[in-house]
Amino acid sequence: MAGKFITFEGTDGAGKTTILNMVLDYLKEEMGDKLVTSREPGGNPIAESIREVILDRKNVDMDKRTEALLYAAARRQNIEQTVKPAIADNKLVICDRYLDSSIAYQGGGREIGEDAINEMNQFATEGFLPDLTIYFNLPVEEGLKRIAKNRAEEEVDRLDVETIDFHNRVHAAYQRLAKANPKRIKSVDATQSIDAVYQNVLEILQPYLNEFKK
Amino acid sequence: MAGKFITFEGTDGAGKTTILNMVLDYLKEEMGDKLVTSREPGGNPIAESIREVILDRKNVDMDKRTEALLYAAARRQNIEQTVKPAIADNKLVICDRYLDSSIAYQGGGREIGEDAINEMNQFATEGFLPDLTIYFNLPVEEGLKRIAKNRAEEEVDRLDVETIDFHNRVHAAYQRLAKANPKRIKSVDATQSIDAVYQNVLEILQPYLNEFKK
Repeated sequence: MAGKFITFEGTDGAGKTTILNMVLDYLKEEMGDKLVTSREPGGNPIAESIREVILDRKNVDMDKRTEALLYAAARRQNIEQTVKPAIADNKLVICDRYLDSSIAYQGGGREIGEDAINEMNQFATEGFLPDLTIYFNLPVEEGLKRIAKNRAEEEVDRLDVETIDFHNRVHAAYQRLAKANPKRIKSVDATQSIDAVYQNVLEILQPYLNEFKK
Repeated sequence: MAGKFITFEGTDGAGKTTILNMVLDYLKEEMGDKLVTSREPGGNPIAESIREVILDRKNVDMDKRTEALLYAAARRQNIEQTVKPAIADNKLVICDRYLDSSIAYQGGGREIGEDAINEMNQFATEGFLPDLTIYFNLPVEEGLKRIAKNRAEEEVDRLDVETIDFHNRVHAAYQRLAKANPKRIKSVDATQSIDAVYQNVLEILQPYLNEFKK
């Protein structure tokens, strides 16, 4: 047996984080210390210190290519220091966001170009991809409505201060990624109830879980 | 007239910083606020916050590609927010280190590969190069002797804790860059006395300075 690397992706408000937390609670019960969780940007102390620079609301003058390079730097550190060693140790690694987020947000959303972001990220990833990516697919307007409803003003970080056009471009890029990578990326209809989405995600995960159970 | 972008490059101990400070003192007198100084990594608040992550001695586990991406991120921010606006404003921008340092240190020194570093950095620079680069050329052993003599132990940061092989690779990469870019990169023999090197540098700079004088 060998470890597995599974990522969760989606636009803002699609319920990714809520479902991810439910999934992780379930998996901790099922597999104990065979489960390793991570997130992007971040995942270990160096990557988290890069995360702080990216998300600092003071940094409104950050150039969009600077931001993309910082995401790639945090990604590299997380892969090398956390994800790959865990996989070599036969763990199941579940990561909140990965390369697809950069392609969708920086490539599509910020209009740097999906190919340019993918190419630059090859320096960071050297072709390392997840075994499975679960993509929470939600129409943009529905996602923005949910964000407005759920978050207090003071919780909104720099990345949320964006236009609806931006979110449309991000969503369109995710749709292209899902279409181009049908074996790796499994889409979930995030307009369903939380419980229905959760069951959907568990079904998709099931074939990957058996060997990790206690 | 238009602004100019001039960079200073060289291996550790080559006297680059000493001469740069002498040159800047001279130029401040000559051209006042037409002179803009910068440094890499850094040059403005966002780039300096990236610098802190790179140079933090706690970050001994930093992957070498993470480091290269952080240098590229700081570079991008410095170009876009500081260097290019100054050039558009007809200033003379003098920067301590630029792309050549990444090619020499990360590409050559850390053996990521000079081409790989150059290619990834195209995402950051989009082809933006200095009008002139002054390269302080000093044999590696001479540079290391000077470092050992001049610096107190507590001043040595993470980057200085390297092997002689590393410094040889950095020097060899600089030599290749100088040979491949004879129009842009002007080499100075840094084995000479400080005064002789300083005069040498002023001679090279002279044709670029006239239009900026008060």
